[in-house]
Amino acid sequence: ATPPPRRSHRPAFAGLCLCLGLCRGLQFNDVDEEAPSAAQTSKYGSLWPLPQEVNIAETSFKLSSSTFRIVDSKQSSAGPSCNILQNAYRKYFEYMFGVARKQEFGKNGRPGLSELTELQVWVTSVDSECDGYPSITSDESYELAVDQPFALLVAPKVWGALRGLETFSQLVYEDEFGAKNINATKIKDFPRFAHRGILLDTSRHYLPVKAILTTLETMAMNKYNVFHWHIVDDPSFPYLSRTFPNLSQKGAYHPYTHVYTPADVKMVIEFARLRGIRVIPEFDTPGHTQSWGKGQANLLTPCYSGSKPSGSFGPVNPILNTTYDFMTQFFKEISSVFPDAYVHLGGDEVDFTCWRSNPDIQKFMEDHGFGHDYSKLESFYIQSTLSFDNEELSKVTASGYTTILSAPWYLDYISYGQDWQKYYKVEPLNFNGTEQQKKLVIGGEACMWGEYVDATNLTPRLWPRASAVAERLWSHQNVTDINDAYSRLSAHRCRLVERGIPAEPLFSSYCPREYKAV
Amino acid sequence: ATPPPRRSHRPAFAGLCLCLGLCRGLQFNDVDEEAPSAAQTSKYGSLWPLPQEVNIAETSFKLSSSTFRIVDSKQSSAGPSCNILQNAYRKYFEYMFGVARKQEFGKNGRPGLSELTELQVWVTSVDSECDGYPSITSDESYELAVDQPFALLVAPKVWGALRGLETFSQLVYEDEFGAKNINATKIKDFPRFAHRGILLDTSRHYLPVKAILTTLETMAMNKYNVFHWHIVDDPSFPYLSRTFPNLSQKGAYHPYTHVYTPADVKMVIEFARLRGIRVIPEFDTPGHTQSWGKGQANLLTPCYSGSKPSGSFGPVNPILNTTYDFMTQFFKEISSVFPDAYVHLGGDEVDFTCWRSNPDIQKFMEDHGFGHDYSKLESFYIQSTLSFDNEELSKVTASGYTTILSAPWYLDYISYGQDWQKYYKVEPLNFNGTEQQKKLVIGGEACMWGEYVDATNLTPRLWPRASAVAERLWSHQNVTDINDAYSRLSAHRCRLVERGIPAEPLFSSYCPREYKAV
Repeated sequence: ATPPPRRSHRPAFAGLCLCLGLCRGLQFNDVDEEAPSAAQTSKYGSLWPLPQEVNIAETSFKLSSSTFRIVDSKQSSAGPSCNILQNAYRKYFEYMFGVARKQEFGKNGRPGLSELTELQVWVTSVDSECDGYPSITSDESYELAVDQPFALLVAPKVWGALRGLETFSQLVYEDEFGAKNINATKIKDFPRFAHRGILLDTSRHYLPVKAILTTLETMAMNKYNVFHWHIVDDPSFPYLSRTFPNLSQKGAYHPYTHVYTPADVKMVIEFARLRGIRVIPEFDTPGHTQSWGKGQANLLTPCYSGSKPSGSFGPVNPILNTTYDFMTQFFKEISSVFPDAYVHLGGDEVDFTCWRSNPDIQKFMEDHGFGHDYSKLESFYIQSTLSFDNEELSKVTASGYTTILSAPWYLDYISYGQDWQKYYKVEPLNFNGTEQQKKLVIGGEACMWGEYVDATNLTPRLWPRASAVAERLWSHQNVTDINDAYSRLSAHRCRLVERGIPAEPLFSSYCPREYKAV
Repeated sequence: ATPPPRRSHRPAFAGLCLCLGLCRGLQFNDVDEEAPSAAQTSKYGSLWPLPQEVNIAETSFKLSSSTFRIVDSKQSSAGPSCNILQNAYRKYFEYMFGVARKQEFGKNGRPGLSELTELQVWVTSVDSECDGYPSITSDESYELAVDQPFALLVAPKVWGALRGLETFSQLVYEDEFGAKNINATKIKDFPRFAHRGILLDTSRHYLPVKAILTTLETMAMNKYNVFHWHIVDDPSFPYLSRTFPNLSQKGAYHPYTHVYTPADVKMVIEFARLRGIRVIPEFDTPGHTQSWGKGQANLLTPCYSGSKPSGSFGPVNPILNTTYDFMTQFFKEISSVFPDAYVHLGGDEVDFTCWRSNPDIQKFMEDHGFGHDYSKLESFYIQSTLSFDNEELSKVTASGYTTILSAPWYLDYISYGQDWQKYYKVEPLNFNGTEQQKKLVIGGEACMWGEYVDATNLTPRLWPRASAVAERLWSHQNVTDINDAYSRLSAHRCRLVERGIPAEPLFSSYCPREYKAV
């Protein structure tokens, strides 16, 4: 409604409310159907993902930034030279206390009776694996006992110690006066699945290294352990290859500003290692290779229109020896750059149209007796590229293919409301199969494909939605209480925000310290 | 597939591709159906929203940060004392050149022949309105002529000058050597609709002032002119009232960290004014007032369960004189704090259940002859609160209710893909009605309700999706070419990113300078 002109002798206000009222009406219908929103406090506080066994007593201790220390236990096989732990000690101290003021630090005075002054970290295996890389078989288990005179974190390897440090930091809470507290607690923990990954796509949009590091940091807060780096694809080739620099020179969105140099890649791998995270790169062939063709002549199949080349190109050309020479050299580099035992080779979605149009390919098919079955040509390509010898191949086959579940967790698909619940409710083993078959499911991945995602929206789109997946992959199968999860996840997301990660809210609510940057 | 263990004599790589392949397969189906993705360059460059009349010639001029200046024209009614323009000059200079290095600044040497060294800004009305507030009747028109010896921006009021400065800055582009260029151009521009708003909801989630200022800044880049501040609602009452400080003391999420002080509000209003943006606050009553009840006794209706109060409360209590005393005082404050002639009073979605349960209300209904029609009680409340006298009310009614369109533009509803196109394709006057009725549509608003939005995800969720609405509300009705829009909007969003705004991408692509913060 148009209001009358403002007059000084009476409060002036009037409505513009017709349409806006409607607008909100629609809004509310959906919301009321959504599940939990009132935050009841969980007896597990803000633990996320929930450890396998947790026992929290009522006794609580105070923690002071001036006295509390995280130290190597005397028996530990990981000492002051273990970067992984020393870095983690500093980081978690800061997470728990913020950057402590210098005056406070190391001040004298006896600790109070109900004060906890030390967390001892004891890596029990002779080989702590501190200087190694995490792998699919890494032991991430740990036990944590918070009690006086000190708290004790025991783990066979540094990987478990890292997970236990995150858990310890999640047990610390502020009381109403802002003092740091922790309850007497016993925890025994290990992951349900060995492979817990996040896929980022740096081809559809380039992600600055900083955005990748932020993701790795947040992954550690959620006990993820695999960064699946979908590094190249049709749209762009940002990987700077030492052997074939033309690939990014011609195939990246920009040859200097939109590439990952060897130094960048090394930094990502080391940053991940320090957090117990594997880096599995993906170089998909023979399809999804348009960007490869720009910097490597004769790599892609020339498509034909009738009897003439059309000027466009299809998948990798599988009939040239030069292709296999190139692939051998290229993947030799990849296997030396990336320390993980796995490289993802893709191999899906090959469009046969272009192969079919090309007379040289047709002849090759005939010569090899493939008939018109182009999937045989694809297999030929894959076999030749992999160059598995038969003996090994049969070994692999006999042991069965392991599976990584990702189909229900495409986090780039967004929708209105609390869709974290949908991701949370997925039970990875909920399929018809034998016990043997279920054992082949070694984990899962949350995928963030890049069509609509870059550094501007990656982090709030990923977190805390990927946190829901993280608990499903780490915690016991019977951890399914959605109300308890809502309470813990709300607190966990506020913790992420406090640690500087713009993780989006679950529903109407607030964090004690809101995100303040742009 | 599980790979064989890595062996040193051959590149080790193997697939984990089973599920991931599937995952991407699904991905692509949707994407291919989406409309434009290949960026053809628009003949209108990166202009957004498109001005009413644009004529861009091929002649181009260079701009140097060491020589180029934005100055008041000698005839202008707005001089060096006009903060609005002086602030805008500095800001747009920085947008165009970045913060210029001191050495460059003011260096000698004659400008080149094809160099543009000056933009003169001429406000033609005797009253430039520089010290006023923008209003629904503000003149935002301007004309821009870019040519030698200088470019000229002519506008009746400072509001048009602001819009023209944004347009000028959008005409500047970098050539392949990074030099700044602008083409000879003639533009005549004015908004199609007078009311072009963004609604932010600071009750469901508190938004730090910084997030509001960032939104205002980005609104100016999109020629928005109304900030509809949905400041309080059921979940929280962050407005710190000088008259009734208990409202936020008790009703805010936190009485110190989650409130807007008078100084905050003043800053928001002034920041908006400097950008030609009105601030229309919304205080919705009698429903949506749960948070009001915490700090103001007897304001809400006690609900009954049978013959006893249930302990819960409903809408504002319309039968007490104290209610109207409170409202009069409260809105008197509001009308003095907010300079705009409009205050949004809400008034929708009143749930009658509680009123119906209350015996005192029942008696009041009877006494007033309202029968069982509670909408009559609601009208009674609204009339009493507004205290319109009949004369004025009939004046308003006779002139017809004006309408603000927002129903198609609830940007908090998200979905996968290029939904900006959906918002873009809305034609506000596409309804059955007379010319007279269509004239009553004075504009529209993009609503960002706060259930799932706070400072962590607000900006990328709002931009560039709200940019699509901005063009619909500013540009000529016939500006509907979706391919041309895609091209200009892609460039516009990269400009937002360069200016530090994390506006999300439209589709697979890149910006010359990607967003780099967290």
